[in-house]
Amino acid sequence: RKLDKSRQDRLYFDSYSDVTIHEEMLADHVRTNAYRTAIFRNSDSIRGKVVLDVGAGTGVLSIFCAQAGARKVFAVEACSIAEQAEKIVKQNKMEDRVEVIRGTVETVELPEQVDVIVSEWMGYALLHESMLNSVLYARDRWLKPGGLILPNRAELFIAPVSDPVVEDRLYFWYNVKDQYGVDMSCMADFAQKCVRNSDIAVNTVAGEDVLSHPARFAELDLRSVTVEELRSVGGAFRCESFGSAAVNAFCVYFTVSFPCPDGPHALVLSTSPFQPETHWKQAVLYVDRPEEVVQDTPVSGEVRMYPSEDSARHVCVHVDFSIGNHKRQSKTFSIPDWTSDAHI
Amino acid sequence: RKLDKSRQDRLYFDSYSDVTIHEEMLADHVRTNAYRTAIFRNSDSIRGKVVLDVGAGTGVLSIFCAQAGARKVFAVEACSIAEQAEKIVKQNKMEDRVEVIRGTVETVELPEQVDVIVSEWMGYALLHESMLNSVLYARDRWLKPGGLILPNRAELFIAPVSDPVVEDRLYFWYNVKDQYGVDMSCMADFAQKCVRNSDIAVNTVAGEDVLSHPARFAELDLRSVTVEELRSVGGAFRCESFGSAAVNAFCVYFTVSFPCPDGPHALVLSTSPFQPETHWKQAVLYVDRPEEVVQDTPVSGEVRMYPSEDSARHVCVHVDFSIGNHKRQSKTFSIPDWTSDAHI
Repeated sequence: RKLDKSRQDRLYFDSYSDVTIHEEMLADHVRTNAYRTAIFRNSDSIRGKVVLDVGAGTGVLSIFCAQAGARKVFAVEACSIAEQAEKIVKQNKMEDRVEVIRGTVETVELPEQVDVIVSEWMGYALLHESMLNSVLYARDRWLKPGGLILPNRAELFIAPVSDPVVEDRLYFWYNVKDQYGVDMSCMADFAQKCVRNSDIAVNTVAGEDVLSHPARFAELDLRSVTVEELRSVGGAFRCESFGSAAVNAFCVYFTVSFPCPDGPHALVLSTSPFQPETHWKQAVLYVDRPEEVVQDTPVSGEVRMYPSEDSARHVCVHVDFSIGNHKRQSKTFSIPDWTSDAHI
Repeated sequence: RKLDKSRQDRLYFDSYSDVTIHEEMLADHVRTNAYRTAIFRNSDSIRGKVVLDVGAGTGVLSIFCAQAGARKVFAVEACSIAEQAEKIVKQNKMEDRVEVIRGTVETVELPEQVDVIVSEWMGYALLHESMLNSVLYARDRWLKPGGLILPNRAELFIAPVSDPVVEDRLYFWYNVKDQYGVDMSCMADFAQKCVRNSDIAVNTVAGEDVLSHPARFAELDLRSVTVEELRSVGGAFRCESFGSAAVNAFCVYFTVSFPCPDGPHALVLSTSPFQPETHWKQAVLYVDRPEEVVQDTPVSGEVRMYPSEDSARHVCVHVDFSIGNHKRQSKTFSIPDWTSDAHI
């Protein structure tokens, strides 16, 4: 058994938090290349036009838009990283076309309406700590009628999963006796309870642990969705399990799509466990009572996502579900508070 | 470049924090086996005697003492893990000899004085979040004159280190242009500043990155040290570098020793970077201005460790140092606040 790396990584990387979050997002090639491709594919709509980048961070998406021919890009960023964005814009000799504006999009004044809004606003489980409200504000305040939003659509999916990590961790307590001559098997119960709490775990789910085709339970059209509608996002789902396993948890993930004028399909940035890993991983929700499934066992229910009462930027996820003939269960999950810096 | 695992691990393992801390400590074989061996080697002093375990956690050290023949062990534990310790004691049929007492050692009443105190009280950088004050209180209040303390000695060491991780992370920003066509090399300066902050990073230092023989700068005799003396622990150090390198940081680590009546040497639990890894890793203190050294360049100075004014359980480390003929530098470090659950 390897001594776990959790604490090391936590302690180590946290001392770099100011720069780490931006490094992590840029190092996420799935994310950054999806935006880059989408921006260049939409260059007919961007060339000579005015773009607003909501939450510009290091300004990378703004520079992509300028490279795609934008006449002017407003890179709005509330955090101090805006100072770095300014330097990066200068280093890339884009200062005549990219204007970094420090402030929240709700308070800044732009000199004109914009043709395009680009934003990478997605948080864990799509809506956690997300800036989607700000993007919708910017759309309603600054986007010309019929303007382009990148991305313009988001979808949420759920699937039942098994989780071998939980089993491994519980098994640890059965091994203590062999290692040290002290029987600690009774700790497995306690460990089980600690694991099956109502925290949303953000973790990479392996494709082979997903027990059915994922079911879509919500869709947001970013051209029309309202802030009011974001107060409760969700819907029903139904899946049928692939084979025999124990359902330990549900996995929730999202996709966002970009219009693709030169192709038959939208361009999709997916955080599915069946697609290459992104820094968003998947949201894992542990159920209180694992249930066995066999092939074709129906797993159905309803998911509701809504802002936490404690903090509007924190998302809660309520899942009501039935597995086969077992009694209906329901549980409400949230992301623990210490991740409040997770998506600035 | 691999997408970093930090956030995943943080998010993932934190949802298990109640059980993780104990799992991590037990899974640390260097730690647990050092205590186990020390207790059995001292069985002549334990057999038929009364033992106090300060901060017993799961009770593993208490059970070791009972296995070594203690007549009675008082397992004092303030946290709710005491309930689990009680179950573990029963499962091992030790309830007639191990008594779990829930409370702080400063407030519990024992029915008698004890012959032996055992405690695993060490925190990051030895004194962070440590319970040493409680052990000293227990010693003065409950230990019979001439009684045994396990461990009975602690030593602190420092060495200059190079850190290739810092270099790697700075290098990332020079690669963004190749990956995405946006020059971000100017971010390296900002990253440098974020990295070289005054947080103590708890990380594994590879032996090959240590640039000199470590120098001992403090020693605590646990039979006699006082709480007053813990308000400032430290001393001078001097090392000579092995060869040409840049001193990016200092590494601070500790050892604790157990008396070993049947052998010529004490039994040492070491957290040195030259010894097998423990969950304490090493404390890494980044200097503001890295300096080059060559073979035999003297690196000398003084280290002071003291409780933070904000929170007495948090340790601060002040280092005054000179590298070769370079100007003397000084810097004060502390462990960031979010690790307050790190060593309960």
